[in-house]
Amino acid sequence: MSKYVYAFSEGNASMRSLLGGKGANLAEMTGLGLPVPSGFTITTEACNRYYADGKQVAPEIMEEALNALKALEERVGKQFGSVENPLLVSVRSGAAVSMPGMMDTILNLGLNDETVKGLAAATGNPRFAYDSYRRFIQMFSNVVMEMDSSLFEKALEAVKEKAGVKLDSQLSAENLEELLKDYKAIFKANKGIDFPQDPKEQLIGAINAVFRSWDNPRAHFYRLMNDIPSSLGTAVNVQSMVFGNMGDDCGTGVAFTRSPSTGENALFGEFLMNAQGEDVVAGIRTPKPIAQLKEDMPHCFDALWDIANKLEAHYKDMQDLEFTIEKGKLYMLQTRNGKRTAAAALRIAVEMVEEGSITKEDALLMVDPKQLDSVLHPTFEPNALKEANPIATGLPASPGAACGRAYFDPEKAAEAAARGEKVILVRVETSPEDIQGMNIAEGIMTARGGMTSHAAVVARGMGRCCVAGCNDIFIDEENAYFRTTEDRIIREGDYISLDGNMGRVYMGQLPTIPANVSGNFAIIMGWADEVRRLGIRTNADTPRDAKQALEFGAEGIGLCRTEHMFFDEDRIMAVRRMIVSTTERQRKAALEELLPMQRQDFYELYMAMEGRPVTIRLLDPPLHEFLPKEQEEVEFLAGQIGITVDHLNEVIRSLQEVNPMMGHRGCRLAVTFPEIARMQTTAIINAALDAMKDGGFTIEPQIMVPLVGDVKELEFVKGIIDETANRIMEERGESLTYEVGTMIELPRAALTADEIATQAKFFSFGTNDLSQMTFGFSRDDSGKFLPDYYTFKIFENDPFAKVDQKGVGKLIKMAVELGRSTNPHMHMGICGEHGGEPSSVEFCHNVGLDYVSCSPFRIPIAKLAAAQAKVKSDRAK
Amino acid sequence: MSKYVYAFSEGNASMRSLLGGKGANLAEMTGLGLPVPSGFTITTEACNRYYADGKQVAPEIMEEALNALKALEERVGKQFGSVENPLLVSVRSGAAVSMPGMMDTILNLGLNDETVKGLAAATGNPRFAYDSYRRFIQMFSNVVMEMDSSLFEKALEAVKEKAGVKLDSQLSAENLEELLKDYKAIFKANKGIDFPQDPKEQLIGAINAVFRSWDNPRAHFYRLMNDIPSSLGTAVNVQSMVFGNMGDDCGTGVAFTRSPSTGENALFGEFLMNAQGEDVVAGIRTPKPIAQLKEDMPHCFDALWDIANKLEAHYKDMQDLEFTIEKGKLYMLQTRNGKRTAAAALRIAVEMVEEGSITKEDALLMVDPKQLDSVLHPTFEPNALKEANPIATGLPASPGAACGRAYFDPEKAAEAAARGEKVILVRVETSPEDIQGMNIAEGIMTARGGMTSHAAVVARGMGRCCVAGCNDIFIDEENAYFRTTEDRIIREGDYISLDGNMGRVYMGQLPTIPANVSGNFAIIMGWADEVRRLGIRTNADTPRDAKQALEFGAEGIGLCRTEHMFFDEDRIMAVRRMIVSTTERQRKAALEELLPMQRQDFYELYMAMEGRPVTIRLLDPPLHEFLPKEQEEVEFLAGQIGITVDHLNEVIRSLQEVNPMMGHRGCRLAVTFPEIARMQTTAIINAALDAMKDGGFTIEPQIMVPLVGDVKELEFVKGIIDETANRIMEERGESLTYEVGTMIELPRAALTADEIATQAKFFSFGTNDLSQMTFGFSRDDSGKFLPDYYTFKIFENDPFAKVDQKGVGKLIKMAVELGRSTNPHMHMGICGEHGGEPSSVEFCHNVGLDYVSCSPFRIPIAKLAAAQAKVKSDRAK
Repeated sequence: MSKYVYAFSEGNASMRSLLGGKGANLAEMTGLGLPVPSGFTITTEACNRYYADGKQVAPEIMEEALNALKALEERVGKQFGSVENPLLVSVRSGAAVSMPGMMDTILNLGLNDETVKGLAAATGNPRFAYDSYRRFIQMFSNVVMEMDSSLFEKALEAVKEKAGVKLDSQLSAENLEELLKDYKAIFKANKGIDFPQDPKEQLIGAINAVFRSWDNPRAHFYRLMNDIPSSLGTAVNVQSMVFGNMGDDCGTGVAFTRSPSTGENALFGEFLMNAQGEDVVAGIRTPKPIAQLKEDMPHCFDALWDIANKLEAHYKDMQDLEFTIEKGKLYMLQTRNGKRTAAAALRIAVEMVEEGSITKEDALLMVDPKQLDSVLHPTFEPNALKEANPIATGLPASPGAACGRAYFDPEKAAEAAARGEKVILVRVETSPEDIQGMNIAEGIMTARGGMTSHAAVVARGMGRCCVAGCNDIFIDEENAYFRTTEDRIIREGDYISLDGNMGRVYMGQLPTIPANVSGNFAIIMGWADEVRRLGIRTNADTPRDAKQALEFGAEGIGLCRTEHMFFDEDRIMAVRRMIVSTTERQRKAALEELLPMQRQDFYELYMAMEGRPVTIRLLDPPLHEFLPKEQEEVEFLAGQIGITVDHLNEVIRSLQEVNPMMGHRGCRLAVTFPEIARMQTTAIINAALDAMKDGGFTIEPQIMVPLVGDVKELEFVKGIIDETANRIMEERGESLTYEVGTMIELPRAALTADEIATQAKFFSFGTNDLSQMTFGFSRDDSGKFLPDYYTFKIFENDPFAKVDQKGVGKLIKMAVELGRSTNPHMHMGICGEHGGEPSSVEFCHNVGLDYVSCSPFRIPIAKLAAAQAKVKSDRAK
Repeated sequence: MSKYVYAFSEGNASMRSLLGGKGANLAEMTGLGLPVPSGFTITTEACNRYYADGKQVAPEIMEEALNALKALEERVGKQFGSVENPLLVSVRSGAAVSMPGMMDTILNLGLNDETVKGLAAATGNPRFAYDSYRRFIQMFSNVVMEMDSSLFEKALEAVKEKAGVKLDSQLSAENLEELLKDYKAIFKANKGIDFPQDPKEQLIGAINAVFRSWDNPRAHFYRLMNDIPSSLGTAVNVQSMVFGNMGDDCGTGVAFTRSPSTGENALFGEFLMNAQGEDVVAGIRTPKPIAQLKEDMPHCFDALWDIANKLEAHYKDMQDLEFTIEKGKLYMLQTRNGKRTAAAALRIAVEMVEEGSITKEDALLMVDPKQLDSVLHPTFEPNALKEANPIATGLPASPGAACGRAYFDPEKAAEAAARGEKVILVRVETSPEDIQGMNIAEGIMTARGGMTSHAAVVARGMGRCCVAGCNDIFIDEENAYFRTTEDRIIREGDYISLDGNMGRVYMGQLPTIPANVSGNFAIIMGWADEVRRLGIRTNADTPRDAKQALEFGAEGIGLCRTEHMFFDEDRIMAVRRMIVSTTERQRKAALEELLPMQRQDFYELYMAMEGRPVTIRLLDPPLHEFLPKEQEEVEFLAGQIGITVDHLNEVIRSLQEVNPMMGHRGCRLAVTFPEIARMQTTAIINAALDAMKDGGFTIEPQIMVPLVGDVKELEFVKGIIDETANRIMEERGESLTYEVGTMIELPRAALTADEIATQAKFFSFGTNDLSQMTFGFSRDDSGKFLPDYYTFKIFENDPFAKVDQKGVGKLIKMAVELGRSTNPHMHMGICGEHGGEPSSVEFCHNVGLDYVSCSPFRIPIAKLAAAQAKVKSDRAK
């Protein structure tokens, strides 16, 4: 039979998933001999049972809990419901990860009309006893019985008014006795029963309430936002009460072993004398800084200081402590690794290594890679932010802070930027044609689209701040303004500020703090570089991206999407002419025009990368993406090519596809139009030969064939590449080594990777498409149903943000193994959006990839995640 | 080192894939001691080497061939190039499967200006010798040197004119000597070299020509049409010549051991005295029936009769023989299993079992499942067909023969059918809205679309004859006519005839022969039923389909696509109202309207199937498929619902998807609109309870959830189904057992089938979607590039016709194993288009599925294929 209840003395810190974070740490502190009030924990498995059993606590679990209660009574020498010596307990929720939104705490459970008298007698403080009972009734009614708290607040106010006092603490024991009657009457009127007098009944209700709170909407939403699986469950901690509000030799407080905002090594925190925990949080009385405790109760401060040092050394991390002082004696109620800013995280990690208390590996594990975003991008000054009111909110689609003048048209934005203006591009939604405008903007704001919309993906790739999906505003692109819900109008040229970390939009210019990538950040990055096994490359389509990535320490380009170069204003016309060609000759002529441009692009990339690996992907998207959408553009193009508008419209129609994602794209283009692959190969090989000569370094171009599903497709395209490359080398009388590889982005490619590997020098996992095909839904369309999937807990994570290890990951693993089985020396990497997401990077490490490739601003995150993966896997050995 | 050349005496019939069919059978006959002229075979592996080595025969292979030649010379006592006793050989191609389009035969190789004299002396027949040489030059020049045959024909005509004769055979030896000079001059003028005199050089040229012919366009096309992999390669047979044209005691002929058109058990065939093989084919002289040989050369007939019986008994199948008589002695040149009509195939198989010469299992293997189509559908009278000229040609999209009046509008077609007219529906292409019209039509003809277009797929499903993709005609639907390339106009009401087996369209009414599914067909089906392990179900959406399927022996319905019921004229409006509802209340009201109709549908299905399993799939396609496309329909709908046209257009726009195939469909609809699943479950359960009561049989509804990718989706929808079903049973106070299962049609479903199996009672593999997602291309869009894929031999087969065993099949296998690992008792089947395709059925048998489900007219094919799979797998044990 499973054990569902553990006394604190039975557990330890390693049982976090079973006992929750709070319970495991209370047990650990108990084991360390620290002064922890006695108690027990009902496990997270009991929570899962609760839901499996249709939201009820199974009788055997309740029996176990009541047995644990009996043992607790014996341990502390008090009894539940005893008038002489009543046991009072707190009931707290506690999941394996800290999570707001769940039921927090019920204090003083065990009080009833009788025990309250015992408490009064035992403490000699009837006022304290009645006040405790009153608080308990209010908390229990609200949290367990789901009554509205304001009912009780009104009664409290009425009594205060009647008594002519302003503060709760000014009420006399008699006032409180009267108030208790009111409270109980309110309860009965509302619930039709008397307030439960049986402490066991109170406890059963509280345990149920904790389990129930695991799934309330706020907790659910928080889990969704923070990628916490619902299956974790919460534990329930039942602990005997200690009182910080019994008199002036009592108090309560919180402390950090180091500063959570700067990382400074000193005890930080605050405390209140004669108070219970909730008073510190409530903010009615102003708490004192912790240093004051040294003067007020020196022996307590010394004990706390001693415990703080012991716990930090024990947990090897900065601790966030809760304590209560009852009649001059210090009790520890909680310890946990403290939350901290990114700057503090970096400083604490570095200094603890310098102090010799942790290893570099420990330090690397101590920094959350996701937090690095705030160090890598500018942020608004916190004080300025406090005073500003957002005029619109959207999704935090790409981090950073940006101010500039609003422009609603990419071309006008580009002109303004050319004049030296700082520009924010405001669009209903963006499309590939807007890329130039996005590139010159400080930030991007859209009315439509989610976290994986075009605007969001491209902005993250560029490291540009972006607030996407501001649904509430109305954007009129034609007349160049937008209107907020408060009917404010922002016109072209008006200054606005975007907060990409929070998804907020402000009027005017807010002052920013620049990114800081030196100091502790640089030290941690250095350690990550020493430790990690995975290589880190970048997805970069322009020399500018490449340079940015090099600054962050990219070791190569894992993905250059050549089509992004096609949207430039000066070449889109040639691209369009190529696409609408009806003969091979026409197409070749257009390609001839594009050739020198592509060659120059690649040359600059090679020069920027100075011999580091550069993987260039051949043209991938369906051709109609490049076609004009507006009728006037169609007319212009028709005139340029010299065909009728009707004819051109016919060509455009014939290029439309029912499911473009599953249509004529990727290597299928190279099969039907080999001349495109030939042009691109020509550009790549010539550019590489030129750059080798000019730069004096060796270049081995890596040419990547997209969307391969069968080895013969790769064989065919490789044939075109080889023939073209050989011809150029022969013509120039020069030579180089190049590699032809492929994306693994179709399920069939993964399933037949052993065959494909015979023709490929490398694999690059395109996890965006691979996820789409494996799940059978497209990113563009899944917005219609994924919200319901989250609501109903069908999905816990967005598969386009985190690699779905169960399904997509299985294919990747299979492909790695199959590929190496026939071609042991091939190198493998990942170049989807997932390449910069920590859990996905860890997965890549574990399945044995050689590198991850991500957008430039994600490189530090990927590096740290790669180092953490290495440390974790080494430690798991 | 590989052996590339085998003497006939070294091989046998089992070496078919290495020696080709012809070579293996020549070797087998040699082994049986039959009179076969000596020779050797160059293997199919040598052919593959030829292509691997860049279209040249490797020196070591050529050396091996020349060694075999030397051995042949010794064996027959003649020498290549000898004047006294010249060895002459034939060179023939021969793949493992018989294949027109490849180089057929070069006879008399070894003749040159010298050996021709030796041949004249040896035979005492200079005219014969010169004629042989002339024929050789012509054949060699054409086949090996790729010269135009007409050059030689002209010279031949000139000589005949000059000699004043009409027939080749009237030319004298002198005439022929002169002609030889002309021939050699033509050769030299054309090729710039003398006609090769070295027999070895001739042989090398001929071997190269055979290998080259493997890949000529006709052979390539034939392979494509017949699913023959290019990797098979062809062998080359080199055989010493025997002459049927040396005099009146010589002859040549072909014979079948039974009638290839009716199957009658007697020697069939024909022969010509004093002739070479090509003369029989050429049709200049009329061959005599084989019975005549008994009178002309009784000992030869007896020998042939004897050999024929021996070979049929040996091969246990009807044989197609080629023989030559040289100076009164019979030589066998070829034996192979004879091609036959479906009727003959059935009769031969049945009679050979009755004769005791083969087992039932042998008989089952003897009938090609694909041939059954012609027995199952009406065909045109062969004589009428001979005289008719097609006015248009297209793809043979669905078999059968049909005549009727052309209608261009589905509604008008339905009206005409209601008047009792026979109707052919003619459309540019069909869409789901045309289903009613297709259903009442005798046949369907379209201008656009391939073998997997909507028209083709639906027509095959209905067993309706269809000619699709008649690209050359111009259809004007609005004005109700079509124009052929010869400017013939066919107007509404004109009679046309469709040949769905050949893809041809004729004017007027051609007489048809009805399908015949009794007699031998029924016997073979009975044996198939005894033998097969796989169950056979049908895909049926209407009671009519179900009844048709039962006639063919369906054992249940494997797939009822409920959406097909939604297109009926009397319900599409309710469906549309359901879709454009903006509130749950509106949607429920529309669903309430649909409920009784669905309930009636299901009731009729259950009654028709009399307790056999019926698998009903919940609504699957994206909702916008049901929406009106024409503006007037939109206006009508808007009026009906009482919203503005603009509003309705907005709703329609909002339902459009970028990639509908990967969009909001399948179980995703049930997640976002649980009320749809609730309505369908209500209809299913109520109908089943009613039918159980009325029919007196037990029904266990199988409810199938489509497009599941994660177990939690299934869990969610199953929750809705269970809750609804339980409520109904409770309300009615009746009960039944039902099963909830899922389609496996997404790669992720296959990859996580172990999890999904915990919630599913059955799996049904939806190989259409599974193939689309695994390959990452949609059926609708792949037409743009698949033709090039076939041309470049990247694909050998259409993955939507045959299960791709390497990729998709791997997923299926994985899903079967994973599913059974957690739920050993679940049943599994397939319900994609592949369920009626023989190689796919065999695959299903081999991976251990329980049944296949296919359209009604494919059931006999599936049955036979299933029986064959069982026999083959038993024999492989």
